[in-house]
Amino acid sequence: ANMTFLGRREPERYGTTTAAEVDAMMSAYAAERGADLEIFYTNIEGEAINRIYSAVDEGFDGLLMHPAGFQYAGFALRDCLAAVKPVLPYVEVHLTHRCIEGGLRTVTAEICEGLVLGFGTDSYLIGFDALQRILERRRA
Amino acid sequence: ANMTFLGRREPERYGTTTAAEVDAMMSAYAAERGADLEIFYTNIEGEAINRIYSAVDEGFDGLLMHPAGFQYAGFALRDCLAAVKPVLPYVEVHLTHRCIEGGLRTVTAEICEGLVLGFGTDSYLIGFDALQRILERRRA
Amino acid sequence: ANMTFLGRREPERYGTTTAAEVDAMMSAYAAERGADLEIFYTNIEGEAINRIYSAVDEGFDGLLMHPAGFQYAGFALRDCLAAVKPVLPYVEVHLTHRCIEGGLRTVTAEICEGLVLGFGTDSYLIGFDALQRILERRRA
Amino acid sequence: ANMTFLGRREPERYGTTTAAEVDAMMSAYAAERGADLEIFYTNIEGEAINRIYSAVDEGFDGLLMHPAGFQYAGFALRDCLAAVKPVLPYVEVHLTHRCIEGGLRTVTAEICEGLVLGFGTDSYLIGFDALQRILERRRA
Amino acid sequence: ANMTFLGRREPERYGTTTAAEVDAMMSAYAAERGADLEIFYTNIEGEAINRIYSAVDEGFDGLLMHPAGFQYAGFALRDCLAAVKPVLPYVEVHLTHRCIEGGLRTVTAEICEGLVLGFGTDSYLIGFDALQRILERRRA
Amino acid sequence: ANMTFLGRREPERYGTTTAAEVDAMMSAYAAERGADLEIFYTNIEGEAINRIYSAVDEGFDGLLMHPAGFQYAGFALRDCLAAVKPVLPYVEVHLTHRCIEGGLRTVTAEICEGLVLGFGTDSYLIGFDALQRILERRRA
Amino acid sequence: ANMTFLGRREPERYGTTTAAEVDAMMSAYAAERGADLEIFYTNIEGEAINRIYSAVDEGFDGLLMHPAGFQYAGFALRDCLAAVKPVLPYVEVHLTHRCIEGGLRTVTAEICEGLVLGFGTDSYLIGFDALQRILERRRA
Amino acid sequence: ANMTFLGRREPERYGTTTAAEVDAMMSAYAAERGADLEIFYTNIEGEAINRIYSAVDEGFDGLLMHPAGFQYAGFALRDCLAAVKPVLPYVEVHLTHRCIEGGLRTVTAEICEGLVLGFGTDSYLIGFDALQRILERRRA
Amino acid sequence: ANMTFLGRREPERYGTTTAAEVDAMMSAYAAERGADLEIFYTNIEGEAINRIYSAVDEGFDGLLMHPAGFQYAGFALRDCLAAVKPVLPYVEVHLTHRCIEGGLRTVTAEICEGLVLGFGTDSYLIGFDALQRILERRRA
Amino acid sequence: ANMTFLGRREPERYGTTTAAEVDAMMSAYAAERGADLEIFYTNIEGEAINRIYSAVDEGFDGLLMHPAGFQYAGFALRDCLAAVKPVLPYVEVHLTHRCIEGGLRTVTAEICEGLVLGFGTDSYLIGFDALQRILERRRA
Amino acid sequence: ANMTFLGRREPERYGTTTAAEVDAMMSAYAAERGADLEIFYTNIEGEAINRIYSAVDEGFDGLLMHPAGFQYAGFALRDCLAAVKPVLPYVEVHLTHRCIEGGLRTVTAEICEGLVLGFGTDSYLIGFDALQRILERRRA
Amino acid sequence: ANMTFLGRREPERYGTTTAAEVDAMMSAYAAERGADLEIFYTNIEGEAINRIYSAVDEGFDGLLMHPAGFQYAGFALRDCLAAVKPVLPYVEVHLTHRCIEGGLRTVTAEICEGLVLGFGTDSYLIGFDALQRILERRRA
Repeated sequence: ANMTFLGRREPERYGTTTAAEVDAMMSAYAAERGADLEIFYTNIEGEAINRIYSAVDEGFDGLLMHPAGFQYAGFALRDCLAAVKPVLPYVEVHLTHRCIEGGLRTVTAEICEGLVLGFGTDSYLIGFDALQRILERRRA
Repeated sequence: ANMTFLGRREPERYGTTTAAEVDAMMSAYAAERGADLEIFYTNIEGEAINRIYSAVDEGFDGLLMHPAGFQYAGFALRDCLAAVKPVLPYVEVHLTHRCIEGGLRTVTAEICEGLVLGFGTDSYLIGFDALQRILERRRA
Repeated sequence: ANMTFLGRREPERYGTTTAAEVDAMMSAYAAERGADLEIFYTNIEGEAINRIYSAVDEGFDGLLMHPAGFQYAGFALRDCLAAVKPVLPYVEVHLTHRCIEGGLRTVTAEICEGLVLGFGTDSYLIGFDALQRILERRRA
Repeated sequence: ANMTFLGRREPERYGTTTAAEVDAMMSAYAAERGADLEIFYTNIEGEAINRIYSAVDEGFDGLLMHPAGFQYAGFALRDCLAAVKPVLPYVEVHLTHRCIEGGLRTVTAEICEGLVLGFGTDSYLIGFDALQRILERRRA
Repeated sequence: ANMTFLGRREPERYGTTTAAEVDAMMSAYAAERGADLEIFYTNIEGEAINRIYSAVDEGFDGLLMHPAGFQYAGFALRDCLAAVKPVLPYVEVHLTHRCIEGGLRTVTAEICEGLVLGFGTDSYLIGFDALQRILERRRA
Repeated sequence: ANMTFLGRREPERYGTTTAAEVDAMMSAYAAERGADLEIFYTNIEGEAINRIYSAVDEGFDGLLMHPAGFQYAGFALRDCLAAVKPVLPYVEVHLTHRCIEGGLRTVTAEICEGLVLGFGTDSYLIGFDALQRILERRRA
Repeated sequence: ANMTFLGRREPERYGTTTAAEVDAMMSAYAAERGADLEIFYTNIEGEAINRIYSAVDEGFDGLLMHPAGFQYAGFALRDCLAAVKPVLPYVEVHLTHRCIEGGLRTVTAEICEGLVLGFGTDSYLIGFDALQRILERRRA
Repeated sequence: ANMTFLGRREPERYGTTTAAEVDAMMSAYAAERGADLEIFYTNIEGEAINRIYSAVDEGFDGLLMHPAGFQYAGFALRDCLAAVKPVLPYVEVHLTHRCIEGGLRTVTAEICEGLVLGFGTDSYLIGFDALQRILERRRA
Repeated sequence: ANMTFLGRREPERYGTTTAAEVDAMMSAYAAERGADLEIFYTNIEGEAINRIYSAVDEGFDGLLMHPAGFQYAGFALRDCLAAVKPVLPYVEVHLTHRCIEGGLRTVTAEICEGLVLGFGTDSYLIGFDALQRILERRRA
Repeated sequence: ANMTFLGRREPERYGTTTAAEVDAMMSAYAAERGADLEIFYTNIEGEAINRIYSAVDEGFDGLLMHPAGFQYAGFALRDCLAAVKPVLPYVEVHLTHRCIEGGLRTVTAEICEGLVLGFGTDSYLIGFDALQRILERRRA
Repeated sequence: ANMTFLGRREPERYGTTTAAEVDAMMSAYAAERGADLEIFYTNIEGEAINRIYSAVDEGFDGLLMHPAGFQYAGFALRDCLAAVKPVLPYVEVHLTHRCIEGGLRTVTAEICEGLVLGFGTDSYLIGFDALQRILERRRA
Repeated sequence: ANMTFLGRREPERYGTTTAAEVDAMMSAYAAERGADLEIFYTNIEGEAINRIYSAVDEGFDGLLMHPAGFQYAGFALRDCLAAVKPVLPYVEVHLTHRCIEGGLRTVTAEICEGLVLGFGTDSYLIGFDALQRILERRRA
């Protein structure tokens, strides 16, 4: 939720890189590493759930997600991630780590394989690498 | 939310009965008892709300629901159930009763006529019977 | 606890059906379904515990209970129910569901197989049916 | 609960007046005022409940009680007091008022007509007078 | 605080007896019992404190107070009552006992000799008697 | 969420004015004041977010919203409001002020310019005026 | 409390408009609308209570108040507002809405008809209009 | 409470030693050490209280108790233990120490001389030795 | 609040030095150091606020205060201290430091330049010295 | 931590037996029972951790420890005890049991085999016996 | 703290890779990427602090740390990390992400640039890469 | 803990005075007043405890300490201070008073004679004076 507005939204916190630039960066990064990447945005939690269930049926290998606005009360999304956990490893990323003070509160992360947070848009790249390591270990 | 994945989702907790099997079971059970049953799944809380308001306009007699992922933060759904309560009695069912420890936390249940939980897929049948008893008493 | 006073006790909340009428209703209902039913009232938690342990020794099949006044601090009763759980499946019933708001707080329910609440004296009938389904599934 | 041990129990807190002396004092006090007084001690919460229900059937006018050990978790007793409230006005007394600091926590008092606490054994006398005033007003 | 408005203020809770009627009742009651009574109202907590300190200097024997609006945050008043406690025994009265549910929260009562609550305007009379008993015991 | 059912929903709390009547009232009120008003209802939080982002692109001047069911857990909506705050001033309105007791809990209000609550359907008119004052001050 | 110092007090939060300027603004605004306005400042909670009770006796129609320093622990003031509520409708205003985060905590607002907060000194004007609407509706 | 069922109750947690075997073990252990031991079981808290008060009158030297189900809400039992503390030293034992995580919560232990927990049925033996040491020190 | 009673109030905690003796001590101490000292007592929080605002207008250099009874709920006083903070540096003193255990809770101290507590009446002298150091540093 | 100061530290609570006397007592007690005992004191939590890890490498059989000052926040020590738990059974002792009221809070005890507390310096002897029983059972 | 025991400590949770193997893996990984890596273990929080301060003086570029046992109460370590933050960017790694449920509680992470958790020993490699990205961005 | 880094650590909060400058300032200040001063820094809590116990044996008169990083979880240090309290009066100082908001939380201060906080490096001087006053009073 709200990630399409990246670059225009509270730039002093999230930087000025736009969503489109992040998409381009990620697509190039994935292509260099021989991975097929599909990018999906939604502001509707149920659509994210729908997309994840169909991703399982389409045979995706893994899921990299910035839960953004869903991290606080996305209990249905969390249950969905738990349902698909055996077949769709999930790595959660956050641009900032401001959520750490007072105790990190991200319900979706309860289900993740691992978590990368605080490196700005580099969190996507680091999370991508981390997800690839998981997939490599599972294949081995 | 997430109920379509039943049978594949954490089977050690929810059993291996699929959503399709539950649908068939319920349809047969309702038909035996001369009741018209419409089954509706959604992962989007707002769609559930929309469906409930139109059910009122279509003259439905009652509502049997497993709130699943909506039980934690479905405040809008709860307010909807409160709005239609006088004309659409609502019975809430849960497959498990793991939610009891530490205090049952289901915001939608605040509005229900009654609650049935912990009997696995039988909860649907027991809940259906309970809803029929309510409708019979109202008619009497 | 306090169930013998049913019908005279806060009738606007619990209805005017007396304990004797509920007993008669339940005995008839059980008899129709070919079940032996023994009804036991006590205001002393320890006596309830004693009764449950001897029920195990007498070979009872199941337990249907409205914990009433014991639901708040009946920790000893709860431990007793946990002790007999493998041989004496327990279904908990409540006349009302007012206890749901603010989180359901019934310590005995932590041990139950399932829970039926909010249907007035019908809760006993629905709970009886639910207990029978459990016993049937165990026999199968 | 524990009131029979009065006079021997933590005398620096509860004084050295024994339970027998309090009984004598109360009986004399009631007799002077033309009232029939029955005194009942029990360490078993359920017996107190039984006694209260039979008091209703025997036509008692009021109840004066020092809940002592039942004040903390006597939820069943509280529900009993609520059940008989319309016909058996209840005045709660405490010898000390140490329970006030940190918020008075006496679950039975939620149901009382009034509360007298902190006057030592005089609390019984003051509570007796207060109960009589209530009965007089009801008669008027 | 707010006691001058008695009789006009939420009469369904506090009754229709006015402050003037309570004053007359109390004055007569004290006169019958040979006691000098001075009645003091204020909506300003500091004035109550001032009045109590000068009462000590004037040789008053005891204090009967309905803290009303001061009971929630009257910490300065509480400290004042603690300061004068050895020479000015204090009995606290409340018209209602609605404050009991959820834990009685009256900071001034931490310092009182005893507490009478819930008997309507009779609380003043009962509290007066209780204060007299304390003074008699101290004289003995 | 749930605002379309206004007038039929808990009328003792929200009044009998329907959503259509409120729409007509607001449209007339805005027209009198020379303002273009677009009214949008949705039960799906993500659609509200989508609508707000496109409103920014369409050049809207301000946002007047009754968050209703989204006020409790609408964290994604809140983040959206924060994102557009510099260009789309937001005034929040509530029909009732029952939400004040126990601490007002509306997550969307953390981002608003101002808040109007408790005046029934007049809250919309008052909120409209307040939003216009903000826009006038910004132009000045 | 503390409102006389407006303009000199934390101007980055409350602006540089002085109390005198606000008085002038309000007096003019009321005069334009044909209303008699009396303005009253006090740093002593009990004086505010006294003023409100005498306002009732003098026949005032309504009360517009910025509780400022009294909002946190003004329990006596709150009880006073409850006492006069049937005859003196109360609208509460706040210059800022910083109090919303973490749950709005203003004890006086529990009694208000409505609440306006966050519009700077315009909150007074908006609150004035809102109070007039209430009085008009009561007259109708 | 519930200790008679030992050996049959959750054996993976409490072991398979039965209550009878523990009784025999303890009787032999006490006899070897020249001590008179009386063993008492009850599921009724008030009976435990009665037994303790009569033990004082019969001249018992000490009390070794596994409070089991009474440890959570046995406030009346705790007050009883406090009353007899000067003449009947009390050592509390627990079979397991699972109660430690999250803070040990045993209200009866507030009154004990010492506490032994976690050694399975050996806890009885260790507790017996510990109680003997206390009695020896008191004699010295 | 309550400081005028010093010496007579709980002497085991606050010592036997009277308020008059402290005044004399402070006046002499200030005179030796060439400072003009004005001493002000009040039991009314609003009067303290009034005095502080006029002190600003009279050109006082600093404020040394023992908040005593105002420390718990003196929110209005705290806001006043915040308002004058740039021109009237405030040093808070306490005779004892018993308030530290369980977390120091003095709302007025949130605004102070510094805090001295626990040295008995010497706290005044130490606080005086500390305030002078602050004024010297500001002049430098 | 702080145990070397035993005998001089708060003797009314911990007695006057010095650390040296306890060491001598324990050494003699162990020698009588044919056990090798090494005693280790440290005020530095990390040194305790180091000592425990090397004890494992040196082949120690068990660990008896009074965590003293480490019991409140010794999370690293607790994790260390968890790491060595399979090979180094740990019995925790406390001189007093004052820590029980308000819930026992000793983080190191979460990992212990058993816990002995409240018997003064005898706690060491009782704990030693208990540890020996554990070792005997493991050998059997 | 406790990391030297890796591989032997709760292997079902932390895996069987030993500390020595992790060291070798990290040294090789760093060498391949042309980085100088120094590895430091300690069970004493203060030594970690000392090491960090001297690292600053020695001109280290960054810090990669698994706080382990220090994450719960390492407040002094946290303050140290805050002190060196401008010159020594810190990346925190955790082997597991079990700490997420119930809110991630790691006080040292409040100061980190970013956080990597849950990837087993790969967390070190991913964290190393992440730290290098930070250093590259700072150089650019 | 962390005090050696003073002047380089968050200078906007702690100022630019270095630890060496504070040492020089304190040594000169003590020398002027004829006092022997020993300054001790450590980042290891246990070393602070060791130093304090040996200070007692060396005959030191008093202790002036800035607990810094130990104030949050220094429970062992606190117990040490309690042990030496009768012979080594302790004055605690803090450079800032930011720790006051939300309740001052310094566990070591529970044991101090007095507390000085918020005056920057002057806190050391003021604390030194305060400690001397205590020693003078003890000698008198």
